[in-house]
Amino acid sequence: MKRPLHGGNLVWAAKQIGCPASSIMDFSASINPLGPPQSALTAIQEALNSLNHYPDPNYQELRQALAQWHNLSAEWVLPGNGAAELLTWAGRQLAELNITYLITPAFQDYWRTLQGFGAKIETHGFNWQDLDPVFTLKNLPRKPAGIIINNPHNPTGKLWKKETLLPLLEQFKLVVVDEAFMDFVPPEQQQSLIPWVSQYPNLVIVRSLTKFYSLPGLRLGYAIAHPDRLQQWQTWRDPWCVNSLAAAAGIAVIQDREFEQQTREWLLSAQPTLFQGLLEISDLNPLVSQANFLLVETGLPSSQLQQKLLHKHRILIRDCLSFPELGDRYFRVAVRTQAENQQLIDALKEI
Amino acid sequence: MKRPLHGGNLVWAAKQIGCPASSIMDFSASINPLGPPQSALTAIQEALNSLNHYPDPNYQELRQALAQWHNLSAEWVLPGNGAAELLTWAGRQLAELNITYLITPAFQDYWRTLQGFGAKIETHGFNWQDLDPVFTLKNLPRKPAGIIINNPHNPTGKLWKKETLLPLLEQFKLVVVDEAFMDFVPPEQQQSLIPWVSQYPNLVIVRSLTKFYSLPGLRLGYAIAHPDRLQQWQTWRDPWCVNSLAAAAGIAVIQDREFEQQTREWLLSAQPTLFQGLLEISDLNPLVSQANFLLVETGLPSSQLQQKLLHKHRILIRDCLSFPELGDRYFRVAVRTQAENQQLIDALKEI
Repeated sequence: MKRPLHGGNLVWAAKQIGCPASSIMDFSASINPLGPPQSALTAIQEALNSLNHYPDPNYQELRQALAQWHNLSAEWVLPGNGAAELLTWAGRQLAELNITYLITPAFQDYWRTLQGFGAKIETHGFNWQDLDPVFTLKNLPRKPAGIIINNPHNPTGKLWKKETLLPLLEQFKLVVVDEAFMDFVPPEQQQSLIPWVSQYPNLVIVRSLTKFYSLPGLRLGYAIAHPDRLQQWQTWRDPWCVNSLAAAAGIAVIQDREFEQQTREWLLSAQPTLFQGLLEISDLNPLVSQANFLLVETGLPSSQLQQKLLHKHRILIRDCLSFPELGDRYFRVAVRTQAENQQLIDALKEI
Repeated sequence: MKRPLHGGNLVWAAKQIGCPASSIMDFSASINPLGPPQSALTAIQEALNSLNHYPDPNYQELRQALAQWHNLSAEWVLPGNGAAELLTWAGRQLAELNITYLITPAFQDYWRTLQGFGAKIETHGFNWQDLDPVFTLKNLPRKPAGIIINNPHNPTGKLWKKETLLPLLEQFKLVVVDEAFMDFVPPEQQQSLIPWVSQYPNLVIVRSLTKFYSLPGLRLGYAIAHPDRLQQWQTWRDPWCVNSLAAAAGIAVIQDREFEQQTREWLLSAQPTLFQGLLEISDLNPLVSQANFLLVETGLPSSQLQQKLLHKHRILIRDCLSFPELGDRYFRVAVRTQAENQQLIDALKEI
């Protein structure tokens, strides 16, 4: 079996050690460990009896709910079969331009979608080891150019300030900001560009509902952009991209303030505790992160560490080899429950 | 609200008459009325506790199950988020050729995907009013050309014989056969091209599991084609197109022989009874069909008939205006249960 390019590939991990996937503690996918919320499961149960009907191809109810949540009107929101499906169409639009700037290390799926549509890519690194890395672009584009960036940045967990991103809207013909992990940032610290979307028709924001609400198996994300652009995307893709159960769950979870509150409380204490625990292990150096995952520098090659943890402890971490700029001495772990994080720390101490 | 281009748009219909969608008897979408089978619902229930994990991006278990069902090996099968998602990638490949032949009247989604990728389209009609229509292509292509056709044909219900389709494999660079309704044809009469796929790398077959197994809300289809082609499609789309619940349901339903048998028995008697009932109504002329739907010629404009049935009887039929070649005097109805079919006939008699 090929080495996975993304976290959360439990089928691959289970084959490695010949055990059921359910027995593996998964730190490789950055999913909220508290979910899925009961509100999602109840909504799914209720929607089961409508599986014999097609979804509403306009997803009006879901679009209205998402739009209201962000103080927008429905035509500015387009649900997708996970954020990754929307990245496909963002990639197609970026490929229409002369060049696309890609901030590296970059999520593997940006490469997939850009290369899949033949985009010309120019990579720009940044000093991710710094406490507060700076984002500077040399060679500002003279031709019609696009840029794709995520905020918070994956896999480093760095949060770009709005002030850093807003000038891009003046410099680039198309700016795609993947805010898949923004919900994990405390509301008062969030740096979303959603409030700028009505002023900038060249801005596309991609969001995910499956990380914060622990539903990656269900697939649900959404894009926020000018209605004309979203209408064009709809002519490219089929009319029923989002399954009915995901549509129902999406409407339910964004109203679930209790789950949101629990998640914020958990992360506020679990993230610094995990950070501190990792910092205290000699040979490990976690990067300060504003997200629900930590990038950790390690003395041992990360794939060796991954194999040891998997075989001895049934713990799966992300080895980060699919981010070539990082080399082989970084791994990424999701923040999980305090008890699970402690198991990870104990296992790492043993190695 | 825009007039729907596809059947099964209950949200649109419900808005027309101000009643809940669930109170409408839907003859407009050609979905098996006996399902979803209990086997699907049980599989979905069991898979609910894995929603917090990503699906296996290789969908190995589902691919193996589908492949075994068709006596193929797994790499020849690619699951998709409904057949429509796979039509997107088939359309992208057809658009790479100089021209695509489209047999009309044609399913609206073929237009969507071909136009979405800028394909050059040449339409070819056929004599659908005949009992056994002939399929002839004038102007055989001299340039690299593709063709897309469905079998059985939608909306006429005509079944093309293998002998009619096989020559296309020698004439066209790419042949896409949409067999979304083939499962409804009795096994001994089926005309699937699946047995030819290993000999013809220019053949793509698209199948649906959501019509026979009544799961259009869940989204599940698959393509059968040469592994190299399917691998290429996988670089175009995101890694987790099929949600985990659909993957689990798909594995379960294809093993459900009892549901298959019940469906065959129902259709064998319900289809001719509905046909006969429609034939006896003056002003209506149903076409002989080998599928689970009937195209019916009508004296009244079909959209008038649709509105009357909807407002007076809460029955939704497909008006077929999205197939411009048919004009305004054809409607399409799904075969439903004997009792529901009788209600449709009674309502039509009243008009």
